[in-house]
Amino acid sequence: MLFAPANRRDLAPKLARSGADAAILDLEDGVAPSGKDDARLAVSESLPTMAESNPDLPVFVRVNAASSQWFAEDLAVALDSGASGIVIPKIESPESVERVQGAIDERGLTGVDVLAGVESAAGVHHVEAIFAAGPSVCYFGAEDYVADIGGIRTRAGQEVLYARSRVALAAHINDVTALDQVVLEFHDDERFVEDAQFGRAIGYQGKICIHPSQVPLANRCFTPTDDQIERSRRLLDQHAAAAVQGLGVIEFDGQMVDEPLVRQARRVVAIADAIGASR
Amino acid sequence: MLFAPANRRDLAPKLARSGADAAILDLEDGVAPSGKDDARLAVSESLPTMAESNPDLPVFVRVNAASSQWFAEDLAVALDSGASGIVIPKIESPESVERVQGAIDERGLTGVDVLAGVESAAGVHHVEAIFAAGPSVCYFGAEDYVADIGGIRTRAGQEVLYARSRVALAAHINDVTALDQVVLEFHDDERFVEDAQFGRAIGYQGKICIHPSQVPLANRCFTPTDDQIERSRRLLDQHAAAAVQGLGVIEFDGQMVDEPLVRQARRVVAIADAIGASR
Amino acid sequence: MLFAPANRRDLAPKLARSGADAAILDLEDGVAPSGKDDARLAVSESLPTMAESNPDLPVFVRVNAASSQWFAEDLAVALDSGASGIVIPKIESPESVERVQGAIDERGLTGVDVLAGVESAAGVHHVEAIFAAGPSVCYFGAEDYVADIGGIRTRAGQEVLYARSRVALAAHINDVTALDQVVLEFHDDERFVEDAQFGRAIGYQGKICIHPSQVPLANRCFTPTDDQIERSRRLLDQHAAAAVQGLGVIEFDGQMVDEPLVRQARRVVAIADAIGASR
Repeated sequence: MLFAPANRRDLAPKLARSGADAAILDLEDGVAPSGKDDARLAVSESLPTMAESNPDLPVFVRVNAASSQWFAEDLAVALDSGASGIVIPKIESPESVERVQGAIDERGLTGVDVLAGVESAAGVHHVEAIFAAGPSVCYFGAEDYVADIGGIRTRAGQEVLYARSRVALAAHINDVTALDQVVLEFHDDERFVEDAQFGRAIGYQGKICIHPSQVPLANRCFTPTDDQIERSRRLLDQHAAAAVQGLGVIEFDGQMVDEPLVRQARRVVAIADAIGASR
Repeated sequence: MLFAPANRRDLAPKLARSGADAAILDLEDGVAPSGKDDARLAVSESLPTMAESNPDLPVFVRVNAASSQWFAEDLAVALDSGASGIVIPKIESPESVERVQGAIDERGLTGVDVLAGVESAAGVHHVEAIFAAGPSVCYFGAEDYVADIGGIRTRAGQEVLYARSRVALAAHINDVTALDQVVLEFHDDERFVEDAQFGRAIGYQGKICIHPSQVPLANRCFTPTDDQIERSRRLLDQHAAAAVQGLGVIEFDGQMVDEPLVRQARRVVAIADAIGASR
Repeated sequence: MLFAPANRRDLAPKLARSGADAAILDLEDGVAPSGKDDARLAVSESLPTMAESNPDLPVFVRVNAASSQWFAEDLAVALDSGASGIVIPKIESPESVERVQGAIDERGLTGVDVLAGVESAAGVHHVEAIFAAGPSVCYFGAEDYVADIGGIRTRAGQEVLYARSRVALAAHINDVTALDQVVLEFHDDERFVEDAQFGRAIGYQGKICIHPSQVPLANRCFTPTDDQIERSRRLLDQHAAAAVQGLGVIEFDGQMVDEPLVRQARRVVAIADAIGASR
């Protein structure tokens, strides 16, 4: 998912061309307090335009934190302008998810995603309860987490290994799609790839990008290859056929396949289908 | 503990000769679905034979997962054939422990161990509750955990550090003997030793082995030396003598000794006694 | 904070000259069982003397563990002799905090700190509940934790990364000042600095020192620079002014500043004020 400050109207067309799976118009950290009103106006203008020019690109809006004075209005404008999803930054409790979901339900909207941004000590501390409240997507925000806990970011990233791992596990348990931390150094491709590969190893399914140049790198790291997709479809077909005969475990390409591998195949196919739909 | 597929009848004598502290006859991942019936038959044949030829070698049976169609029959055959313990793979909840313990109690058996295989996201997420249900042994299964969470295994193993650490801590809290992850590369002794040493550093008390060549390496890493055993026995003697006089802390070899060190000495002596009994 | 065995009366003046933010007179691991009575007597002598010669240096007393036969008397002597705080070693449950706090309240004392020493498997397992019981300071004790869990200490320290990270997070959530693990190799400055820098990266706010030579190294790693202090004071001033106008987020030096950064600035100023008061 690729971020851009909502008031940078010039960036909206670039989001669509970037190849990202989804775009995020940011009303929070990327927008100064004095620019919040204008950014909100920009959201109401950009969302319909982007939907028209790129109907397959989901466009999320990152509202300001639930504790801020801007939250309620941000949320209203985003939902009323047709946002595909709402990003809740610095989430600290399940109530924020419920509040956003309540605003979605109130409007009778369906298919609007709630993305929980876990990027504070309280967010990590309550992450299991937050994800149980039902967001469909999340990200782990290393920069803000470390600032909040009073630590220091390092390239090796050992200072966030506990939090980053715990968020990935909680996401998996609650069927929340997990997006990995931002890499601020957007001119350093090697660093991004290194970080994305470890994010994938630890269980993340994608990356938050802050620059279009990061998008193809993320796609390469996280997108299954054609071989993997074909193999996964065959595996699911055989598994489904076996299930009809009451079998839960099958032999496939000389390997015994049980639930973890079936779930992995389902994820690969879900990603492939999502890519097919959005590209 | 050394694994072998239960239907590989030729391996049973090798398990006994390997020097492992215990053997596991596997009915799960090591056996194809079409071979399950035969493997179960092999269990009923091998267990009495092995008990006769090697009465001191505990032989466990790994049944199929509690959610599978094979679980109940696997469990019945293993217990009725005299298994020393039951390995529950991919455990996800305390109920599986209770179910196996219930089957043991129903038969009026005593001294049959329950080993919880923690190797899924749900297993790690619920590990504290699972261990509180009373298994006596556990292992952490890195391969399946990472497959389940959709990650990638690396040699450095940072992707499982959180889960591997959390399982070791929960095991310790609940007095569960903790066995460390498998090393699949069974021709790479250096890698095994490196992995075993870190497993020991983090609090594991042994290794799951998948090849006889790994057993002496594991024994060397995890077995206390004669010096350590002698020192631990002396320490416990002095501590017991002091306790009679109402003292909880003693001076020993110039060092102040309190509970953590006493518990460590007890573990060393317990291992030494177990080795004495089984070798 | 700098430790010295309480019965080493010769060290008390050195504690004051060390430049440490606080001193700890140790009645626990640093004192042999046969020396406990004398050490307690030394506490009752040293505390008033140190308060007279260095009124700004907080002097804590580390009592023996709550489960030991010495705990109650240690606590009484420390509190009745004017200790600035009580260090509870090897804490395993919130009840120990409550017991110490009860003894403080009983005497009608105020401003006496409770420091929870988290250095056992049980301590880490219950750390969230222990910190919720209200200690104001804590330390993570790697040596005892690893001994308790039956592991092995390594220089890289990966074996404690989970526990060390979890303690730092729980401390932050409960507003407990977190002090990082001891470095036993007190002749190895490089190692101390490396360890302290990572401790800081992970969210610790200071170090436990066991030798005066470690104090300036710790102070250099953890003390904010004059620039950071000045910048933090300005930030808090502007934030306070904005709050009067109902604004929670401000622009500061070209950056958007919200809660995490405000809390970080508050911590910097609190440290600066504490240093101003104690030096």
